[in-house]
Amino acid sequence: MGRATDRRSVLRIDLSTDGGAVRRPDTLAAEEPLEIRVGTRGPERRPPLAVTMRTPGDDLDLAVGFLLTEGLIRDADDVLTAQLCAGTDTPNTYNVVDVVLAAHVPAPQTDPTRNFYTTSSCGVCGKASIDAVRTRSRFTVADDPVTVTAATLAGLPDRLRAAQRAFERTGGLHAAGLFTPDGELVVLREDVGRHNAVDKVIGWAVRERRLPLRGHVLLVSGRASFELTQKAWMAGVPLLAAVSAPSTLAADLAAEAGMTLVGFLRGPTMNVYAGGHRVLT
Amino acid sequence: MGRATDRRSVLRIDLSTDGGAVRRPDTLAAEEPLEIRVGTRGPERRPPLAVTMRTPGDDLDLAVGFLLTEGLIRDADDVLTAQLCAGTDTPNTYNVVDVVLAAHVPAPQTDPTRNFYTTSSCGVCGKASIDAVRTRSRFTVADDPVTVTAATLAGLPDRLRAAQRAFERTGGLHAAGLFTPDGELVVLREDVGRHNAVDKVIGWAVRERRLPLRGHVLLVSGRASFELTQKAWMAGVPLLAAVSAPSTLAADLAAEAGMTLVGFLRGPTMNVYAGGHRVLT
Repeated sequence: MGRATDRRSVLRIDLSTDGGAVRRPDTLAAEEPLEIRVGTRGPERRPPLAVTMRTPGDDLDLAVGFLLTEGLIRDADDVLTAQLCAGTDTPNTYNVVDVVLAAHVPAPQTDPTRNFYTTSSCGVCGKASIDAVRTRSRFTVADDPVTVTAATLAGLPDRLRAAQRAFERTGGLHAAGLFTPDGELVVLREDVGRHNAVDKVIGWAVRERRLPLRGHVLLVSGRASFELTQKAWMAGVPLLAAVSAPSTLAADLAAEAGMTLVGFLRGPTMNVYAGGHRVLT
Repeated sequence: MGRATDRRSVLRIDLSTDGGAVRRPDTLAAEEPLEIRVGTRGPERRPPLAVTMRTPGDDLDLAVGFLLTEGLIRDADDVLTAQLCAGTDTPNTYNVVDVVLAAHVPAPQTDPTRNFYTTSSCGVCGKASIDAVRTRSRFTVADDPVTVTAATLAGLPDRLRAAQRAFERTGGLHAAGLFTPDGELVVLREDVGRHNAVDKVIGWAVRERRLPLRGHVLLVSGRASFELTQKAWMAGVPLLAAVSAPSTLAADLAAEAGMTLVGFLRGPTMNVYAGGHRVLT
């Protein structure tokens, strides 16, 4: 079974000392492909829907979250089973998740010639796609009355980092954390890909039957892109906060959704790009 | 025509002062979809191959670089024309690049039902895919005799930042810079997506007929993933340096390719994960 980190030999160079280069082991964030197979129950092998480069761990959350944020499932009842299964590698690397959909769920369209699904993660987007998200998302966030104090928000990055163990060792993992309005951490997930970290959080919530995530704050360790904002909306998150910068399209989508978007959440300062009424000062 | 940055109104909160929240304009990194259409010359409309969320600017470099790193073209002679064309939006947002391939180039397979190409950017990867990259890349980097001093490498991030104007205003743009072994900046490109920034640099090199990029250093402002390492290999780059952490698969792929991979290039220190013989201390 894959691990979140792995060790490699590295040549460490420090020009501020006279020691030159020193060979030593270093801990890196693990990156491995995860193939998500989706279909209905039956004896036949289910077709691959997508492959994502991810950090091993919480793979069922990742697969289920991906299906939810792509609009392919609505809730936990749409999934009959989801399990890690043996890949074709020897030794078994457990890089395949097999998802059996409930009978009432339409099977996703996969390309028969390539056997891979084109995801909106790749950026199939723009105005038409923003409209598509609005029709696809089951949840309205604009009417979520939750409020959070700026002081609580300012404390979230430290709580995220404190809970994020692998990052300390590798510096290479994005984190996504779900918080209550009082700043209590509900769940944390890490990944080399920030979209994967968010999908893992949302997949956890799906499997725990906690959707929609009304009244919650989702914090991401990096930047806020259109894609992350879209995923938050698909899960019904009313407040998305990012340690770093948002893009124009993230701000625009948040405004359209009635979602609160906070960026540059660092120390005592933050920028609110949309939905400022939920942030109490 | 799209711009690299755009302004949005933002609520700035600073808890360290008693000023509370102040509304002011803020400059954000622009994020817009770019549709890449590819086909042969003819009166018919060429089909969309991919859409990527990118920062407007250097779109022809991005499209051509994407085609090269995806293995769909070999060099500039494979492209008859590449031009920005009117999209369907009003006003025209110039978010479509139309690429006409030379007659001898096989048209890429697109999914007729979805009209979108599944890219390896989405992570179609793993062991099988690493093998595929090895066969697909036209260039050998293992025999590139270039060497770079650690002192030169240590100076590159400052040179990249000095040349990176939009980042100062937004904090939201990744940069990729191509350097000579002496540390001279050859070309810089920025994007909200780091894979796009790298594709823009490589596309520039394709259009300038500079491939393979033997004897060059490619520096990226963020982390080094499998995908970025793969793109560098496709362009024949012998040394990839990253300001932040590499993943396990990036280090493994670099070692397989005979490429030098430097990570955590910060101040006087750096880690060399592969190909240490090219870094002189």
